Amino acid sequence: MANIRDVAKAAGVSVTTVSRVLNNQPYVKEEKEAAVKKAIKETGYIPNINAVNLKKGKTNLIGVVLPFLDQPYFSNLVQGISQAASVHQYKLVLYQTGYHEHQEKEALEMLKLKQIDSLIICSRKISLDIVESYQQYGNIVLFEDGEQTSLSYTFIDHYACFIKALEYLYEHGHREIGFSINRLEGTNSRQREQAYRDFLKLKGLPYNEKYIFKKCLNIEDGERILKEMGTFQKRPTAILATGDQVAAGIITSSSKYQLKIPEDLAVIGFDDQPIARAMSITTVDIPLYSIGQLLFEQAVSEKVSHKEVSAELIERSTV
Amino acid sequence: MANIRDVAKAAGVSVTTVSRVLNNQPYVKEEKEAAVKKAIKETGYIPNINAVNLKKGKTNLIGVVLPFLDQPYFSNLVQGISQAASVHQYKLVLYQTGYHEHQEKEALEMLKLKQIDSLIICSRKISLDIVESYQQYGNIVLFEDGEQTSLSYTFIDHYACFIKALEYLYEHGHREIGFSINRLEGTNSRQREQAYRDFLKLKGLPYNEKYIFKKCLNIEDGERILKEMGTFQKRPTAILATGDQVAAGIITSSSKYQLKIPEDLAVIGFDDQPIARAMSITTVDIPLYSIGQLLFEQAVSEKVSHKEVSAELIERSTV
Repeated sequence: MANIRDVAKAAGVSVTTVSRVLNNQPYVKEEKEAAVKKAIKETGYIPNINAVNLKKGKTNLIGVVLPFLDQPYFSNLVQGISQAASVHQYKLVLYQTGYHEHQEKEALEMLKLKQIDSLIICSRKISLDIVESYQQYGNIVLFEDGEQTSLSYTFIDHYACFIKALEYLYEHGHREIGFSINRLEGTNSRQREQAYRDFLKLKGLPYNEKYIFKKCLNIEDGERILKEMGTFQKRPTAILATGDQVAAGIITSSSKYQLKIPEDLAVIGFDDQPIARAMSITTVDIPLYSIGQLLFEQAVSEKVSHKEVSAELIERSTV
Repeated sequence: MANIRDVAKAAGVSVTTVSRVLNNQPYVKEEKEAAVKKAIKETGYIPNINAVNLKKGKTNLIGVVLPFLDQPYFSNLVQGISQAASVHQYKLVLYQTGYHEHQEKEALEMLKLKQIDSLIICSRKISLDIVESYQQYGNIVLFEDGEQTSLSYTFIDHYACFIKALEYLYEHGHREIGFSINRLEGTNSRQREQAYRDFLKLKGLPYNEKYIFKKCLNIEDGERILKEMGTFQKRPTAILATGDQVAAGIITSSSKYQLKIPEDLAVIGFDDQPIARAMSITTVDIPLYSIGQLLFEQAVSEKVSHKEVSAELIERSTV
């Protein structure tokens, strides 16, 4: 394939002149410009964007680290990022990691190697120290409460959200409250567990390890919760499900376990996904789409910023 | 920032020698290799992947064209593509187009400019002629029945799927059958409408333009269908909804319109999304995850291939 030198040779001009024509720069005589354009056509030369990127030190690509794409939580977030990116002529490179640290590391390495201009980390397993060590190579933005970090982040106060939902269940007479979570080690999860512990202490209620249902992410996990609960001598009267999918799973399998919702078991979901609207699930609305837009803005901004987004409890029919 | 020339200068060797060391090539004397490595450390030189890509003519990035990401249909498809890509050390660049032709064109241009090695088009508005004119620049793979095209594609026989679902409704006594669709101009939609017309003709049933509900994509559109139907003198007794979200919307708003499902109105969805499992919706299972994997394989294969994937009707509680 023809390169820029071939074009210069065919046009009888210097490589610099070809480059000027390609980049619409001034100071090129008309006849030279015509010769270059003719030579481009004849040689079939196509500029390679990697050469352009190399010269500009910029790719207009933003990396997005996320564990899965087939969770509405993450796909809505990426939709928000992607819409904002599109307006500003950026594209997204997906680093789908499944929470594997080496894949998260790879995304950071790609920031270093300039495959991308910035990196948005939607959820991570890798330590914040390692992430921070890459900030010299480009903007890194977190979707979590980054507290003392020098990185930009947007976050939801999951501690406050959890307290709000627990308080709501308490007001509705519930004293045996359980909750579901995916992994316990993330920043958001830690905040939620702390809120749960603090709430129980405040209300003088006992802490029951068994009431925390781990590795819950999908509809199928909702049924697993009911199955586990069936083995308890005393079971929760309410479940706070961190994800509407799990809440939906609890509700659809409830009749199989002779449980009426909300009479025998109250359920609160999280995120306000379409499934929550369809099934009239009481939930905590997390505005993922707007959060995605904020994350993008932070990714291309020259200033470090920290933004908090608030979440509302939406009362429907499952409490 | 230091470049390869700075490293060469600091090490007192040629640029070629530095390049050899960076690419682990033979024929470099031990002391020169040591000098280069020392110089890399001292100058803080970081290789730029755009230079590497330029040299290799390859980026290990695959483009994915799709209208939206916040539809489970597309997010599950991308999850499948992304998983397969990850195994083969590829990453995805998203071109989220909202069915705007100029954005689809931009993705094709990026194939030409080598931002990506191949392009997977999940759904498109742009003409096949334009798409084909770009195949000289890299693999282009379609998720549709490409028929006579010289591009690779994976497809579902939407005509046969539609006939199957219509036949099932017919067997259950339905003679007034409507269907919902998003846009009518796509390849899949055209096949579905043709199947609908052919089926009615075969059964000697009248064709009623009003029974085709257009621009249906989300849960909210399900309610719109019921609202529109409320204005009909005679209404369908069954709806084939091309998307479980729309089916779910019909079902959840049915009580508001005094309709019992399936007694007053039968509903079949499409895709077998989690929402269909949760709400026990009879649906046509489209294995999006496996399709995503096939699309990736075609994107990196040297051979053009055409693959058909079959879809099954899953009987649940809405017919």
